Amino acid sequence: MERKRVGVILSGCGVYDGSEIQETVLILLALAKREAVAVCLAPNQSQMHVVNHLTGELASGETRNVLEESARIARGAVTDLKSAEAASLDALILPGGFGAAKNLCDFATKGAECAVLPEVERLMLEIRQANKPIGVACIAPVIAAKVLGALGPELTIGDDPETAAAMERMGARHTVCPATGYHVDAALKLVSTPAYMNASGIGEAAQGIDGMVAAVLHLTGVAEGSRLRVEGE
Amino acid sequence: MERKRVGVILSGCGVYDGSEIQETVLILLALAKREAVAVCLAPNQSQMHVVNHLTGELASGETRNVLEESARIARGAVTDLKSAEAASLDALILPGGFGAAKNLCDFATKGAECAVLPEVERLMLEIRQANKPIGVACIAPVIAAKVLGALGPELTIGDDPETAAAMERMGARHTVCPATGYHVDAALKLVSTPAYMNASGIGEAAQGIDGMVAAVLHLTGVAEGSRLRVEGE
Repeated sequence: MERKRVGVILSGCGVYDGSEIQETVLILLALAKREAVAVCLAPNQSQMHVVNHLTGELASGETRNVLEESARIARGAVTDLKSAEAASLDALILPGGFGAAKNLCDFATKGAECAVLPEVERLMLEIRQANKPIGVACIAPVIAAKVLGALGPELTIGDDPETAAAMERMGARHTVCPATGYHVDAALKLVSTPAYMNASGIGEAAQGIDGMVAAVLHLTGVAEGSRLRVEGE
Repeated sequence: MERKRVGVILSGCGVYDGSEIQETVLILLALAKREAVAVCLAPNQSQMHVVNHLTGELASGETRNVLEESARIARGAVTDLKSAEAASLDALILPGGFGAAKNLCDFATKGAECAVLPEVERLMLEIRQANKPIGVACIAPVIAAKVLGALGPELTIGDDPETAAAMERMGARHTVCPATGYHVDAALKLVSTPAYMNASGIGEAAQGIDGMVAAVLHLTGVAEGSRLRVEGE
């Protein structure tokens, strides 16, 4: 059996200014357990913020590069998002962390009026148009809500009412879900799990993420998809 | 049942200048799966290096703090190593990454002639003298070799001959072991696994680390230990 290749879009290295590290590693583990190949991707640009993770405060005057910091989690094996193509991937997964809402889009400051980084939007739309599955964890569902909003995607962000309301303003239908679970929009092959939006610890996050990754990989083998194209909807 | 409290000594955030991120998260996951509490600890000092993980090159002129960077993996929940006491811990675990050999000791530059950070050495000796177990992954066994060398500890670093020879010069007995396995020195309650010294990917590292953590937790309930004290040996 050919091993599935799954793009994982990183946004830095650390929950407050980049990818949530534990979620990302749990995604890599869940893929490896199922013999899938993780293709780590990240934009080559400066982070919006550098946050001191000990104090939670902004590190003034410091800048870090998203691609270079993402390489820390991936042990160097990360590629510029710009060069990624849907044709060479079977699925796409976005971990959470504030980096998803700060570096991959500007949801952290703009909410429902956010814009998504063009390279992220392009790849997500290519994957969708190819009828391949997308998995999103933690805060990353807001990106799916924005990019796929015209299709009325079903998503979960856990149970945070403010974030859920913003997602619905972008066109999504929000479903409450515990951290140990995940929600599948079968028509759009879109799988979401709350991870650290709700998880009390790594064990709960791991359970939901493992289920999400399993569902994404399952959907790579499902031909059916009732709403395949973004245009014209 | 009282939950076991396990100190995890971090050394930054990233394989080339800090803690190996994937190993660290796998340790936290293995502890959580068994209802143990991870107590993340790190020294409050500058890293020896900052390495660009995309290129592998030194980032010249940049400095980062070990405690602050370690907080990225721990989601902020990390304590200055200085305040850690063996009395409040049931066991101690050290993940690998070059940070273990650069920031917790200077093995990266001095080899067998290395010195261990006094706070690391103090806590490891306190844990040993209290007959509590210690787990070490990847390159971290070199620290155990130095601190416990007088006791002739049995350790594995995988199969790297140069590192194994340095460990033997420090007093350890080296055992070859695959990444999926782990070695137990029952007398010293010391458990080691090669992790990314040998692992071809996160799946292999996870298997060895899960076994190491399980063994460490098992040993917290074992009263017997034939060589309890460092002094006089």
